[in-house]
Amino acid sequence: MPKPTPLSGFPELLPAARVVEREVIASLSRTFELHGFANIETRVVEPLDRLAKGGEIDKEIYVLRRLQAGEGEGDSGLGLHFDLTVPFARYVLEHAGHLEFPFRRFQIQPAWRGERPQEGRYRQFTQADVDIVGRDELPFHHDVEVMRVMVDALDALPLPALSFQFNNRKLIQGFYRGLGLPDLTTAIRTIDKLDKLPADEVAALLVRDAGATPEQARRCLELATIRVPDTTFVDAVRDLGVEDELLDEGLAELAAVVEGCGAEERRHVTVEANLRIARGLDYYTGTVVEIFMAGYERLKSVGGGGRYDALASDGRTTYPGVGVSFGVSRSLIPLISDGVLSGSRPVPSVVLVAVTDEDSRGDADAIATALRAGGVPCEVSPSAAKFGKQIRYAERRGIPYVWFGAEVKDIRSGAQVAADPATWQPPAEDLRPAIITNTEENHQ
Amino acid sequence: MPKPTPLSGFPELLPAARVVEREVIASLSRTFELHGFANIETRVVEPLDRLAKGGEIDKEIYVLRRLQAGEGEGDSGLGLHFDLTVPFARYVLEHAGHLEFPFRRFQIQPAWRGERPQEGRYRQFTQADVDIVGRDELPFHHDVEVMRVMVDALDALPLPALSFQFNNRKLIQGFYRGLGLPDLTTAIRTIDKLDKLPADEVAALLVRDAGATPEQARRCLELATIRVPDTTFVDAVRDLGVEDELLDEGLAELAAVVEGCGAEERRHVTVEANLRIARGLDYYTGTVVEIFMAGYERLKSVGGGGRYDALASDGRTTYPGVGVSFGVSRSLIPLISDGVLSGSRPVPSVVLVAVTDEDSRGDADAIATALRAGGVPCEVSPSAAKFGKQIRYAERRGIPYVWFGAEVKDIRSGAQVAADPATWQPPAEDLRPAIITNTEENHQ
Repeated sequence: MPKPTPLSGFPELLPAARVVEREVIASLSRTFELHGFANIETRVVEPLDRLAKGGEIDKEIYVLRRLQAGEGEGDSGLGLHFDLTVPFARYVLEHAGHLEFPFRRFQIQPAWRGERPQEGRYRQFTQADVDIVGRDELPFHHDVEVMRVMVDALDALPLPALSFQFNNRKLIQGFYRGLGLPDLTTAIRTIDKLDKLPADEVAALLVRDAGATPEQARRCLELATIRVPDTTFVDAVRDLGVEDELLDEGLAELAAVVEGCGAEERRHVTVEANLRIARGLDYYTGTVVEIFMAGYERLKSVGGGGRYDALASDGRTTYPGVGVSFGVSRSLIPLISDGVLSGSRPVPSVVLVAVTDEDSRGDADAIATALRAGGVPCEVSPSAAKFGKQIRYAERRGIPYVWFGAEVKDIRSGAQVAADPATWQPPAEDLRPAIITNTEENHQ
Repeated sequence: MPKPTPLSGFPELLPAARVVEREVIASLSRTFELHGFANIETRVVEPLDRLAKGGEIDKEIYVLRRLQAGEGEGDSGLGLHFDLTVPFARYVLEHAGHLEFPFRRFQIQPAWRGERPQEGRYRQFTQADVDIVGRDELPFHHDVEVMRVMVDALDALPLPALSFQFNNRKLIQGFYRGLGLPDLTTAIRTIDKLDKLPADEVAALLVRDAGATPEQARRCLELATIRVPDTTFVDAVRDLGVEDELLDEGLAELAAVVEGCGAEERRHVTVEANLRIARGLDYYTGTVVEIFMAGYERLKSVGGGGRYDALASDGRTTYPGVGVSFGVSRSLIPLISDGVLSGSRPVPSVVLVAVTDEDSRGDADAIATALRAGGVPCEVSPSAAKFGKQIRYAERRGIPYVWFGAEVKDIRSGAQVAADPATWQPPAEDLRPAIITNTEENHQ
């Protein structure tokens, strides 16, 4: 069979790059668990009617068919999930009787979309989602909590500067209602186009599609230009002179989120209120957020989420939720491709145990066993070649130490010392492959 | 939308059961890394011609089709992988120029088969594979090594007794050749039916299908009855009086594997030479192994693998490999269903920080932040209900400690002591959810 060629949209990582992804996933998991979130995994398939929204499927879904299906058997009726929210909502409904609410979960899995691949958009991509779901009710303070968890989680990663841009659907809806706009839903969808269209075109669309007067459209755009790193947006909105109860509620909620997430000094995460963030999806009902990565604005957001008062419902019980998703593939693959992030070595081994001759391979195995008992990852040389060749074997894999009989050599410095495999430990920074950040790379 | 019902063959774990699977995967990964194996993940899809064997697809494969495919666009030509060997072989060929050989990798991912679900057989199931692949050549000692790695890895898990049953294709082929059997491949496939058919039927099939004489068939069965926990099989085979060079090689290899894997005393893994193990698959060329779990013989093997002299080939270069696969879902899901394994609690939180009233939620948040800085997973009570209700919230989730102001209470014993959240640590056994083994359960 000929040499295979890559499949567009299905990126695969070499071992050193996989170190980056794996360490990122481990770090995210650690933060989520410190905050008491349980991990779950859902099956990768959902019935097609679950993947539909309002009866219609607007996503590029992959449908499954059994290759050996009988005549006329057709599709399985199952599709690969395109995000982790739909399967999570289904999981909550299906297993509600066995879950304790509020239910706090994180989920890090691939999802699939059959769309045209481009940088940051893949046909298979990994997401990390964290959500809190209540039964019948879910106090607002969980909005602040779950957003702060993601701020904590992303601040712990070696990423470029990240900006959490918050808004609140109640704020927008209340403002539009207070203005007297006739069609709030269309207005929100239209404002959401501000990142693609110039302001005057959006204003024209507000008049044409959402039934706004030119004056109303102007004030909608005024609202959308407010963007501050603190709670001063409250006064800025008040100054626009619109009165509405829902607006008041939205202002208070957004202020609490911005304050709660922005209070601490962070390494590279900043927080803003950005009143043009709407998120096109219908089901958000309060807090909304989009996350942007400095130097990678071309990817659009690398994460987002918000509050949905009806994440799931079985007709009798409604499950409100709040959550946020981070695009692991969407952010990491461009950073890896650009050389901004790399793995310090492609193998876990800290030590290569040299073999003098094949008859003494058992001695080398015994040294390796002793090292492993002390928690030191190592491997035994595959051949009893000349020592120079064995050292080059280690060098090519980035393995920092070679063990010869009763001595260990740091092949980077050349320093060689007597050592006992039962007690020897490498410096902590050598123990595991790590993520290397190359800030010299031009990642424009 | 109505309450969803489970999809047959796509098992999903509740959070406490997921603790079991997650800890098992973490433990396997730890052992593989201690032995210097790098982790990779492959995309879940392969072109259909890669999933075919000798031009024919004999597995129940799920094919993908874009739901929004245009008229006449048909299938994508991609199928979900049905194991991790096919994608790994393709990964090696595709990325060979960027890999160092021998290449040592482990891979823990789901695979899919559209077959009829039954206990231990699912449509989506997770496997853990560990392999070593060489370019052009791969010394035999890697057979011993990779099998010992899996013995180490499974011995570290809290599973029922496991038996590694080894054989060697060279031994079987050499013996059959030495006997003068005309059709070795058919003979091996026929002997492989010994776990389904009685010995006299297999003998009749050897005569009918493999062209054996009744005397040859009798001696094939004699070979297949040899099963010992040590290297005494060598003399037992010699006593059958067949002479062949390949047989000698196979005997020496099998003796080295059994000795290498069986030398150490293990907690619950035992090693045997079982000369009826053949593994039906064609590509094995030396060492073969199947792994069985005590009390769960009805699942057939829970793992297996072996040596393949041509794991992959692009026409110019051939990549021999040796590896072994463990069925994570196949073994764990029955054990979880039977109550043999369970998670100690469904949440990572060790501590619930109580909230006196909503105005002081910030104080509770500060305590939680201090605990997390010390690596203690915790969550803040979702409501400022009466303390008794907050304690019940913790109890229902198996959270062992509740924090009240300046004191921490072990709600299992009732003991309450003054504590500083900046320095307090739980006993090590409470820090993370763990796997509980219930050996009282009847798992017949």
